[in-house]
Amino acid sequence: MNEAISVLQAHKSERSYTDEAVSDADLATIVEAGRRGPTSINGQQVSVVVVRDAERRAKIAEIAGGQPWIAKAPVFLAVLIDFHKTAVALRMAGREQVIHESVEGTIVGSIDPGIALGAMMTAARALGLGTVPIGGIRRDPDAMVALLGLPPMTFPVVGMCVGHVAEPAERKPRLPLPAFRFDERYDEAALEPAIAEYDVELAEHWKKIGRADGLPWSANLAGIYDKVYFPHVKGCAAKQGFKNDK
Amino acid sequence: MNEAISVLQAHKSERSYTDEAVSDADLATIVEAGRRGPTSINGQQVSVVVVRDAERRAKIAEIAGGQPWIAKAPVFLAVLIDFHKTAVALRMAGREQVIHESVEGTIVGSIDPGIALGAMMTAARALGLGTVPIGGIRRDPDAMVALLGLPPMTFPVVGMCVGHVAEPAERKPRLPLPAFRFDERYDEAALEPAIAEYDVELAEHWKKIGRADGLPWSANLAGIYDKVYFPHVKGCAAKQGFKNDK
Repeated sequence: MNEAISVLQAHKSERSYTDEAVSDADLATIVEAGRRGPTSINGQQVSVVVVRDAERRAKIAEIAGGQPWIAKAPVFLAVLIDFHKTAVALRMAGREQVIHESVEGTIVGSIDPGIALGAMMTAARALGLGTVPIGGIRRDPDAMVALLGLPPMTFPVVGMCVGHVAEPAERKPRLPLPAFRFDERYDEAALEPAIAEYDVELAEHWKKIGRADGLPWSANLAGIYDKVYFPHVKGCAAKQGFKNDK
Repeated sequence: MNEAISVLQAHKSERSYTDEAVSDADLATIVEAGRRGPTSINGQQVSVVVVRDAERRAKIAEIAGGQPWIAKAPVFLAVLIDFHKTAVALRMAGREQVIHESVEGTIVGSIDPGIALGAMMTAARALGLGTVPIGGIRRDPDAMVALLGLPPMTFPVVGMCVGHVAEPAERKPRLPLPAFRFDERYDEAALEPAIAEYDVELAEHWKKIGRADGLPWSANLAGIYDKVYFPHVKGCAAKQGFKNDK
Protein backbone atom coordinates (compact mmCIF):
# COMPACT_ATOMS: atom_id res chain seq x y z
CA MET A 1 0.00 0.00 0.00
CA ASN A 2 1.36 3.43 -0.79
CA GLU A 3 2.48 5.70 2.00
CA ALA A 4 -0.15 8.44 1.68
CA ILE A 5 -2.91 5.83 1.88
CA SER A 6 -1.44 4.15 4.92
CA VAL A 7 -1.05 7.51 6.71
CA LEU A 8 -4.71 8.31 5.98
CA GLN A 9 -6.06 4.94 7.04
CA ALA A 10 -3.93 4.81 10.18
CA HIS A 11 -5.35 8.08 11.51
CA LYS A 12 -5.53 8.30 15.30
CA SER A 13 -5.63 11.15 17.77
CA GLU A 14 -2.62 11.52 20.04
CA ARG A 15 -2.97 13.24 23.40
CA SER A 16 0.42 12.46 24.93
CA TYR A 17 3.37 14.65 23.88
CA THR A 18 7.03 15.09 24.76
CA ASP A 19 8.63 18.51 25.34
CA GLU A 20 10.47 18.36 22.02
CA ALA A 21 9.80 21.36 19.79
CA VAL A 22 8.30 21.13 16.32
CA SER A 23 10.84 22.53 13.85
CA ASP A 24 10.02 25.64 11.83
CA ALA A 25 10.49 23.59 8.66
CA ASP A 26 8.00 20.90 9.73
CA LEU A 27 5.53 23.56 10.81
CA ALA A 28 5.87 25.32 7.45
CA THR A 29 5.28 22.02 5.63
CA ILE A 30 2.16 21.32 7.70
CA VAL A 31 0.67 24.78 7.15
CA GLU A 32 1.50 24.63 3.44
CA ALA A 33 -0.55 21.42 3.11
CA GLY A 34 -3.50 23.37 4.52
CA ARG A 35 -2.94 26.35 2.26
CA ARG A 36 -2.77 24.17 -0.87
CA GLY A 37 -6.15 22.47 -0.27
CA PRO A 38 -9.19 23.23 -2.42
CA THR A 39 -11.82 25.77 -1.33
CA SER A 40 -15.29 26.51 -2.60
CA ILE A 41 -15.15 28.79 -5.70
CA ASN A 42 -11.43 29.27 -4.81
CA GLY A 43 -12.73 31.68 -2.17
CA GLN A 44 -10.00 30.63 0.29
CA GLN A 45 -12.22 31.62 3.22
CA VAL A 46 -9.99 29.82 5.70
CA SER A 47 -7.03 30.97 7.78
CA VAL A 48 -4.74 29.41 10.35
CA VAL A 49 -3.38 31.04 13.50
CA VAL A 50 -0.22 29.30 14.70
CA VAL A 51 0.00 29.43 18.49
CA ARG A 52 3.32 28.49 20.06
CA ASP A 53 3.30 30.85 23.04
CA ALA A 54 2.95 28.69 26.18
CA GLU A 55 0.69 31.07 28.10
CA ARG A 56 -1.64 31.36 25.17
CA ARG A 57 -1.76 27.57 24.79
CA ALA A 58 -2.53 27.20 28.50
CA LYS A 59 -5.41 29.64 28.03
CA ILE A 60 -6.73 27.64 25.04
CA ALA A 61 -6.51 24.43 27.11
CA GLU A 62 -8.78 26.12 29.65
CA ILE A 63 -11.17 27.53 27.00
CA ALA A 64 -11.53 24.01 25.60
CA GLY A 65 -12.82 22.78 28.97
CA GLY A 66 -9.52 21.57 30.44
CA GLN A 67 -7.58 19.70 27.76
CA PRO A 68 -4.00 19.51 29.12
CA TRP A 69 -2.54 18.25 25.82
CA ILE A 70 -3.16 21.72 24.33
CA ALA A 71 -0.83 23.22 26.94
CA LYS A 72 1.66 20.37 26.55
CA ALA A 73 2.00 20.04 22.75
CA PRO A 74 4.37 22.76 21.48
CA VAL A 75 2.09 23.93 18.66
CA PHE A 76 -1.62 24.67 18.45
CA LEU A 77 -3.15 25.52 15.09
CA ALA A 78 -6.43 27.42 15.25
CA VAL A 79 -8.38 27.14 12.01
CA LEU A 80 -10.75 29.98 11.18
CA ILE A 81 -13.73 30.52 8.97
CA ASP A 82 -12.41 33.67 7.33
CA PHE A 83 -14.95 35.71 5.40
CA HIS A 84 -13.11 38.82 6.58
CA LYS A 85 -10.38 38.24 4.02
CA THR A 86 -12.95 37.85 1.25
CA ALA A 87 -14.83 40.97 2.47
CA VAL A 88 -11.59 42.93 2.13
CA ALA A 89 -11.26 41.62 -1.43
CA LEU A 90 -14.85 42.62 -2.20
CA ARG A 91 -14.27 46.09 -0.80
CA MET A 92 -11.16 46.40 -2.98
CA ALA A 93 -13.45 45.58 -5.92
CA GLY A 94 -16.05 48.11 -4.76
CA ARG A 95 -18.67 45.68 -3.41
CA GLU A 96 -20.22 44.72 -0.08
CA GLN A 97 -20.18 41.09 1.00
CA VAL A 98 -23.42 39.28 1.88
CA ILE A 99 -22.49 35.58 1.82
CA HIS A 100 -21.31 35.40 5.46
CA GLU A 101 -24.83 36.22 6.69
CA SER A 102 -26.30 33.07 5.13
CA VAL A 103 -26.62 29.43 6.15
CA GLU A 104 -24.77 28.65 2.91
CA GLY A 105 -21.93 30.84 4.21
CA THR A 106 -21.78 28.97 7.51
CA ILE A 107 -21.80 25.62 5.73
CA VAL A 108 -19.16 26.39 3.12
CA GLY A 109 -17.24 28.36 5.72
CA SER A 110 -17.02 25.22 7.86
CA ILE A 111 -16.31 22.67 5.12
CA ASP A 112 -13.15 24.41 3.95
CA PRO A 113 -11.53 24.55 7.43
CA GLY A 114 -12.33 20.83 7.68
CA ILE A 115 -10.43 20.19 4.45
CA ALA A 116 -7.51 22.34 5.64
CA LEU A 117 -7.47 20.72 9.08
CA GLY A 118 -7.46 17.24 7.55
CA ALA A 119 -4.59 18.11 5.22
CA MET A 120 -2.55 19.57 8.08
CA MET A 121 -3.19 16.52 10.29
CA THR A 122 -2.20 14.19 7.48
CA ALA A 123 0.97 16.21 6.77
CA ALA A 124 1.91 16.24 10.46
CA ARG A 125 1.46 12.48 10.73
CA ALA A 126 3.40 11.91 7.51
CA LEU A 127 6.27 13.80 9.18
CA GLY A 128 6.13 11.41 12.14
CA LEU A 129 4.40 13.85 14.47
CA GLY A 130 1.19 13.35 16.44
CA THR A 131 -1.99 15.43 16.25
CA VAL A 132 -5.40 15.68 17.85
CA PRO A 133 -8.20 17.83 16.44
CA ILE A 134 -9.80 20.19 18.98
CA GLY A 135 -13.44 21.20 18.61
CA GLY A 136 -13.45 22.39 22.22
CA ILE A 137 -12.42 25.92 21.21
CA ARG A 138 -16.13 26.35 20.34
CA ARG A 139 -16.92 25.94 24.06
CA ASP A 140 -16.07 29.63 24.50
CA PRO A 141 -15.55 31.11 21.05
CA ASP A 142 -15.73 34.70 22.41
CA ALA A 143 -12.60 34.00 24.45
CA MET A 144 -10.83 32.67 21.35
CA VAL A 145 -11.86 35.77 19.38
CA ALA A 146 -10.33 37.97 22.10
CA LEU A 147 -7.20 35.83 22.52
CA LEU A 148 -6.34 35.71 18.82
CA GLY A 149 -7.55 39.23 17.99
CA LEU A 150 -10.03 37.99 15.42
CA PRO A 151 -11.86 40.56 13.26
CA PRO A 152 -15.56 40.44 12.27
CA MET A 153 -16.59 37.78 9.77
CA THR A 154 -14.09 35.28 11.18
CA PHE A 155 -14.89 32.41 13.54
CA PRO A 156 -12.53 30.03 15.38
CA VAL A 157 -14.08 26.82 14.20
CA VAL A 158 -11.64 24.03 15.02
CA GLY A 159 -8.02 23.53 16.03
CA MET A 160 -5.34 20.90 16.39
CA CYS A 161 -2.35 20.11 18.57
CA VAL A 162 0.94 19.11 16.95
CA GLY A 163 3.91 17.57 18.70
CA HIS A 164 6.16 14.58 19.17
CA VAL A 165 4.25 11.64 20.60
CA ALA A 166 5.19 10.34 24.05
CA GLU A 167 2.85 7.36 24.50
CA PRO A 168 1.09 6.41 21.25
CA ALA A 169 -2.69 5.99 21.41
CA GLU A 170 -4.60 2.94 20.23
CA ARG A 171 -6.53 3.46 17.00
CA LYS A 172 -10.25 3.76 17.78
CA PRO A 173 -12.67 1.62 15.76
CA ARG A 174 -15.23 3.33 13.52
CA LEU A 175 -18.87 2.55 12.71
CA PRO A 176 -19.05 -0.42 10.32
CA LEU A 177 -18.87 0.47 6.64
CA PRO A 178 -22.62 -0.08 5.95
CA ALA A 179 -23.36 2.90 8.22
CA PHE A 180 -20.85 5.13 6.36
CA ARG A 181 -20.97 4.11 2.71
CA PHE A 182 -24.19 3.91 0.77
CA ASP A 183 -24.42 2.95 -2.89
CA GLU A 184 -26.69 5.03 -5.15
CA ARG A 185 -29.25 5.73 -2.40
CA TYR A 186 -29.35 6.07 1.39
CA ASP A 187 -30.19 2.80 3.16
CA GLU A 188 -32.06 3.33 6.40
CA ALA A 189 -32.10 -0.40 7.18
CA ALA A 190 -28.31 -0.53 7.49
CA LEU A 191 -28.15 1.75 10.51
CA GLU A 192 -29.52 -0.11 13.55
CA PRO A 193 -27.53 -3.34 13.06
CA ALA A 194 -24.34 -1.37 12.39
CA ILE A 195 -24.83 0.77 15.50
CA ALA A 196 -25.59 -2.26 17.67
CA GLU A 197 -22.43 -3.96 16.38
CA TYR A 198 -20.36 -0.83 16.97
CA ASP A 199 -21.66 -0.39 20.53
CA VAL A 200 -20.17 -3.78 21.35
CA GLU A 201 -16.94 -3.12 19.45
CA LEU A 202 -16.35 0.24 21.11
CA ALA A 203 -17.03 -1.23 24.56
CA GLU A 204 -14.35 -3.83 23.83
CA HIS A 205 -11.97 -1.06 22.75
CA TRP A 206 -12.48 0.80 26.05
CA LYS A 207 -11.85 -2.41 27.98
CA LYS A 208 -8.68 -3.09 25.98
CA ILE A 209 -7.22 0.34 26.73
CA GLY A 210 -8.34 0.30 30.38
CA ARG A 211 -10.92 3.09 30.17
CA ALA A 212 -13.39 1.94 32.82
CA ASP A 213 -15.63 4.97 32.15
CA GLY A 214 -15.91 4.29 28.40
CA LEU A 215 -19.51 4.05 27.20
CA PRO A 216 -21.01 2.29 24.19
CA TRP A 217 -21.30 4.70 21.26
CA SER A 218 -25.07 5.26 21.41
CA ALA A 219 -25.07 5.83 25.18
CA ASN A 220 -22.17 8.26 24.88
CA LEU A 221 -23.86 10.26 22.12
CA ALA A 222 -27.13 10.25 24.06
CA GLY A 223 -25.47 12.26 26.83
CA ILE A 224 -24.07 14.82 24.39
CA TYR A 225 -26.44 15.33 21.47
CA ASP A 226 -29.64 15.64 23.53
CA LYS A 227 -28.69 19.32 23.93
CA VAL A 228 -26.56 22.01 22.31
CA TYR A 229 -23.35 21.09 24.08
CA PHE A 230 -21.50 24.25 22.94
CA PRO A 231 -24.33 26.72 23.60
CA HIS A 232 -22.32 29.91 22.95
CA VAL A 233 -21.63 29.18 19.28
CA LYS A 234 -24.82 30.75 17.93
CA GLY A 235 -24.39 34.00 19.87
CA CYS A 236 -20.71 34.45 19.13
CA ALA A 237 -21.21 33.58 15.46
CA ALA A 238 -24.01 36.16 15.21
CA LYS A 239 -21.81 38.77 16.90
CA GLN A 240 -19.09 38.04 14.34
CA GLY A 241 -21.61 38.61 11.54
CA PHE A 242 -22.76 35.04 10.84
CA LYS A 243 -26.47 35.73 11.24
CA ASN A 244 -27.74 32.61 9.44
CA ASP A 245 -30.89 34.53 8.46
CA LYS A 246 -30.51 34.15 4.69
CA MET B 1 10.03 15.00 0.48
CA ASN B 2 7.84 12.13 1.54
CA GLU B 3 5.05 10.95 -0.68
CA ALA B 4 2.05 11.91 1.45
CA ILE B 5 3.36 15.47 1.72
CA SER B 6 3.95 15.79 -2.00
CA VAL B 7 0.44 14.49 -2.76
CA LEU B 8 -1.03 17.06 -0.36
CA GLN B 9 0.99 19.99 -1.64
CA ALA B 10 0.42 19.09 -5.29
CA HIS B 11 -3.37 19.23 -4.93
CA LYS B 12 -5.21 20.36 -8.03
CA SER B 13 -8.72 19.88 -9.34
CA GLU B 14 -9.11 17.78 -12.48
CA ARG B 15 -12.11 18.25 -14.75
CA SER B 16 -11.06 16.12 -17.72
CA TYR B 17 -11.60 12.37 -17.45
CA THR B 18 -11.23 9.28 -19.65
CA ASP B 19 -13.91 6.59 -19.87
CA GLU B 20 -11.83 4.14 -17.84
CA ALA B 21 -13.66 2.76 -14.80
CA VAL B 22 -12.43 3.19 -11.23
CA SER B 23 -11.82 -0.27 -9.80
CA ASP B 24 -13.86 -1.51 -6.84
CA ALA B 25 -10.62 -1.90 -4.89
CA ASP B 26 -9.55 1.70 -5.49
CA LEU B 27 -13.02 2.96 -4.64
CA ALA B 28 -13.00 0.95 -1.40
CA THR B 29 -9.58 2.41 -0.50
CA ILE B 30 -10.80 5.95 -1.15
CA VAL B 31 -13.98 5.55 0.92
CA GLU B 32 -12.02 3.87 3.73
CA ALA B 33 -9.75 6.94 3.98
CA GLY B 34 -12.91 8.99 4.57
CA ARG B 35 -14.33 6.57 7.11
CA ARG B 36 -11.12 6.53 9.16
CA GLY B 37 -10.91 10.32 9.58
CA PRO B 38 -11.59 11.99 12.92
CA THR B 39 -15.00 13.43 13.79
CA SER B 40 -16.13 15.72 16.58
CA ILE B 41 -16.73 13.72 19.82
CA ASN B 42 -16.39 10.60 17.62
CA GLY B 43 -19.96 11.37 16.55
CA GLN B 44 -19.30 10.19 12.99
CA GLN B 45 -22.04 12.48 11.66
CA VAL B 46 -20.88 12.04 8.09
CA SER B 47 -21.85 9.58 5.35
CA VAL B 48 -20.93 9.03 1.74
CA VAL B 49 -23.24 8.03 -1.10
CA VAL B 50 -21.30 6.42 -3.96
CA VAL B 51 -22.96 7.24 -7.29
CA ARG B 52 -21.81 5.25 -10.31
CA ASP B 53 -25.09 5.07 -12.21
CA ALA B 54 -24.68 7.18 -15.37
CA GLU B 55 -28.22 8.60 -15.40
CA ARG B 56 -27.93 9.65 -11.80
CA ARG B 57 -24.57 11.31 -12.48
CA ALA B 58 -26.05 13.16 -15.46
CA LYS B 59 -28.80 14.42 -13.17
CA ILE B 60 -26.24 15.59 -10.59
CA ALA B 61 -24.29 17.39 -13.34
CA GLU B 62 -27.51 19.27 -14.10
CA ILE B 63 -28.31 19.98 -10.42
CA ALA B 64 -24.81 21.44 -10.03
CA GLY B 65 -25.58 24.00 -12.73
CA GLY B 66 -24.19 22.14 -15.73
CA GLN B 67 -20.86 20.57 -14.78
CA PRO B 68 -20.20 17.99 -17.49
CA TRP B 69 -17.27 16.36 -15.62
CA ILE B 70 -19.80 14.95 -13.12
CA ALA B 71 -21.49 13.03 -15.93
CA LYS B 72 -18.14 12.05 -17.45
CA ALA B 73 -16.13 10.84 -14.41
CA PRO B 74 -17.20 7.26 -13.57
CA VAL B 75 -17.69 7.92 -9.85
CA PHE B 76 -19.35 10.70 -7.91
CA LEU B 77 -19.13 10.69 -4.12
CA ALA B 78 -21.80 12.71 -2.33
CA VAL B 79 -20.78 13.60 1.21
CA LEU B 80 -23.58 14.15 3.72
CA ILE B 81 -23.98 15.85 7.05
CA ASP B 82 -25.59 12.87 8.77
CA PHE B 83 -27.28 13.60 12.08
CA HIS B 84 -29.87 10.99 11.14
CA LYS B 85 -27.49 8.20 12.04
CA THR B 86 -26.76 9.80 15.40
CA ALA B 87 -30.50 10.37 16.02
CA VAL B 88 -31.06 6.64 15.47
CA ALA B 89 -28.32 5.95 18.05
CA LEU B 90 -29.94 8.37 20.52
CA ARG B 91 -33.32 6.74 20.02
CA MET B 92 -31.73 3.33 20.67
CA ALA B 93 -30.47 4.83 23.95
CA GLY B 94 -33.92 6.27 24.76
CA ARG B 95 -33.20 9.93 24.03
CA GLU B 96 -34.25 12.61 21.54
CA GLN B 97 -31.60 14.49 19.59
CA VAL B 98 -31.39 18.29 19.70
CA ILE B 99 -27.92 19.11 18.34
CA HIS B 100 -28.95 19.18 14.65
CA GLU B 101 -31.24 22.17 15.30
CA SER B 102 -28.33 24.38 16.39
CA VAL B 103 -25.75 26.54 14.63
CA GLU B 104 -23.15 24.40 16.43
CA GLY B 105 -24.72 21.36 14.71
CA THR B 106 -24.48 22.98 11.28
CA ILE B 107 -20.86 23.98 11.88
CA VAL B 108 -19.63 20.67 13.24
CA GLY B 109 -21.83 18.86 10.75
CA SER B 110 -19.99 20.67 7.93
CA ILE B 111 -16.43 20.43 9.29
CA ASP B 112 -16.47 16.63 9.44
CA PRO B 113 -17.58 16.16 5.78
CA GLY B 114 -14.75 18.55 4.89
CA ILE B 115 -12.26 16.31 6.68
CA ALA B 116 -13.72 13.20 5.02
CA LEU B 117 -13.77 14.84 1.58
CA GLY B 118 -10.15 15.93 1.94
CA ALA B 119 -9.05 12.44 2.97
CA MET B 120 -10.89 10.86 0.03
CA MET B 121 -9.41 13.36 -2.44
CA THR B 122 -5.93 12.75 -1.09
CA ALA B 123 -6.40 8.97 -1.26
CA ALA B 124 -7.70 9.17 -4.84
CA ARG B 125 -4.75 11.28 -5.91
CA ALA B 126 -2.30 8.98 -4.13
CA LEU B 127 -3.77 6.16 -6.24
CA GLY B 128 -3.02 8.16 -9.41
CA LEU B 129 -6.62 9.21 -10.01
CA GLY B 130 -7.99 12.73 -10.48
CA THR B 131 -10.65 14.47 -8.40
CA VAL B 132 -12.57 17.71 -8.26
CA PRO B 133 -14.65 18.77 -5.27
CA ILE B 134 -18.22 19.82 -6.12
CA GLY B 135 -20.03 22.35 -3.98
CA GLY B 136 -22.59 22.85 -6.75
CA ILE B 137 -24.86 20.14 -5.32
CA ARG B 138 -25.99 22.88 -2.90
CA ARG B 139 -27.44 24.76 -5.87
CA ASP B 140 -30.53 22.54 -5.60
CA PRO B 141 -30.18 20.48 -2.43
CA ASP B 142 -33.86 19.44 -2.54
CA ALA B 143 -33.19 17.65 -5.82
CA MET B 144 -30.21 15.86 -4.26
CA VAL B 145 -32.34 14.82 -1.27
CA ALA B 146 -34.90 13.30 -3.66
CA LEU B 147 -32.31 11.68 -5.94
CA LEU B 148 -30.38 9.97 -3.14
CA GLY B 149 -33.40 9.22 -0.92
CA LEU B 150 -31.99 11.18 2.00
CA PRO B 151 -33.82 11.01 5.34
CA PRO B 152 -34.42 13.94 7.73
CA MET B 153 -31.40 15.31 9.58
CA THR B 154 -29.11 14.66 6.63
CA PHE B 155 -27.89 17.26 4.13
CA PRO B 156 -25.92 16.80 0.86
CA VAL B 157 -23.16 19.20 1.67
CA VAL B 158 -20.40 18.57 -0.85
CA GLY B 159 -19.29 16.01 -3.40
CA MET B 160 -16.39 14.97 -5.57
CA CYS B 161 -15.73 13.37 -8.94
CA VAL B 162 -13.21 10.54 -9.23
CA GLY B 163 -11.73 9.16 -12.41
CA HIS B 164 -8.70 8.69 -14.60
CA VAL B 165 -7.36 12.02 -15.85
CA ALA B 166 -7.43 12.74 -19.59
CA GLU B 167 -5.79 16.18 -19.80
CA PRO B 168 -4.13 17.19 -16.53
CA ALA B 169 -4.97 20.64 -15.17
CA GLU B 170 -2.44 23.29 -14.18
CA ARG B 171 -2.10 23.81 -10.44
CA LYS B 172 -3.81 27.08 -9.46
CA PRO B 173 -1.87 29.53 -7.29
CA ARG B 174 -3.14 30.34 -3.79
CA LEU B 175 -3.23 33.55 -1.78
CA PRO B 176 0.27 34.35 -0.46
CA LEU B 177 1.11 32.78 2.88
CA PRO B 178 0.74 36.03 4.92
CA ALA B 179 -2.99 35.99 4.10
CA PHE B 180 -3.34 32.37 5.25
CA ARG B 181 -0.96 31.89 8.16
CA PHE B 182 -0.94 34.20 11.16
CA ASP B 183 1.35 33.80 14.15
CA GLU B 184 -0.15 34.18 17.63
CA ARG B 185 -2.68 36.82 16.54
CA TYR B 186 -4.61 37.81 13.41
CA ASP B 187 -2.82 40.45 11.33
CA GLU B 188 -5.21 42.73 9.48
CA ALA B 189 -2.36 44.63 7.78
CA ALA B 190 -1.24 41.52 5.88
CA LEU B 191 -4.42 41.22 3.83
CA GLU B 192 -4.53 44.05 1.28
CA PRO B 193 -0.96 43.64 -0.04
CA ALA B 194 -1.40 39.86 -0.27
CA ILE B 195 -4.70 40.20 -2.13
CA ALA B 196 -3.25 42.80 -4.53
CA GLU B 197 -0.30 40.48 -5.23
CA TYR B 198 -2.61 37.50 -5.75
CA ASP B 199 -4.89 39.41 -8.13
CA VAL B 200 -1.89 39.85 -10.42
CA GLU B 201 -0.65 36.28 -9.95
CA LEU B 202 -4.05 34.76 -10.73
CA ALA B 203 -4.47 36.95 -13.82
CA GLU B 204 -1.13 35.58 -15.04
CA HIS B 205 -2.32 32.04 -14.36
CA TRP B 206 -5.47 32.58 -16.45
CA LYS B 207 -3.37 33.97 -19.28
CA LYS B 208 -0.96 31.02 -19.09
CA ILE B 209 -3.78 28.45 -19.41
CA GLY B 210 -5.61 30.47 -22.08
CA ARG B 211 -8.71 31.37 -20.04
CA ALA B 212 -9.58 34.72 -21.59
CA ASP B 213 -12.57 35.11 -19.23
CA GLY B 214 -10.47 34.61 -16.07
CA LEU B 215 -10.85 37.49 -13.59
CA PRO B 216 -8.53 38.70 -10.84
CA TRP B 217 -9.41 37.06 -7.52
CA SER B 218 -11.11 40.09 -5.89
CA ALA B 219 -13.20 40.88 -8.99
CA ASN B 220 -14.25 37.24 -9.28
CA LEU B 221 -15.32 37.03 -5.62
CA ALA B 222 -17.12 40.38 -5.92
CA GLY B 223 -19.50 38.83 -8.46
CA ILE B 224 -20.24 35.83 -6.23
CA TYR B 225 -20.16 36.84 -2.56
CA ASP B 226 -22.26 39.99 -2.89
CA LYS B 227 -25.28 37.70 -2.62
CA VAL B 228 -26.26 34.24 -1.39
CA TYR B 229 -25.26 32.39 -4.53
CA PHE B 230 -26.91 29.11 -3.45
CA PRO B 231 -30.15 30.63 -2.14
CA HIS B 232 -31.99 27.33 -1.55
CA VAL B 233 -29.61 26.03 1.12
CA LYS B 234 -31.34 27.70 4.08
CA GLY B 235 -34.80 26.45 3.13
CA CYS B 236 -33.76 22.90 2.33
CA ALA B 237 -31.62 22.68 5.46
CA ALA B 238 -34.56 23.86 7.59
CA LYS B 239 -36.86 21.31 5.92
CA GLN B 240 -34.32 18.61 6.76
CA GLY B 241 -34.38 19.72 10.42
CA PHE B 242 -31.38 22.08 10.50
CA LYS B 243 -33.25 25.05 11.92
CA ASN B 244 -30.21 27.00 13.16
CA ASP B 245 -32.38 28.57 15.86
CA LYS B 246 -30.36 27.38 18.87
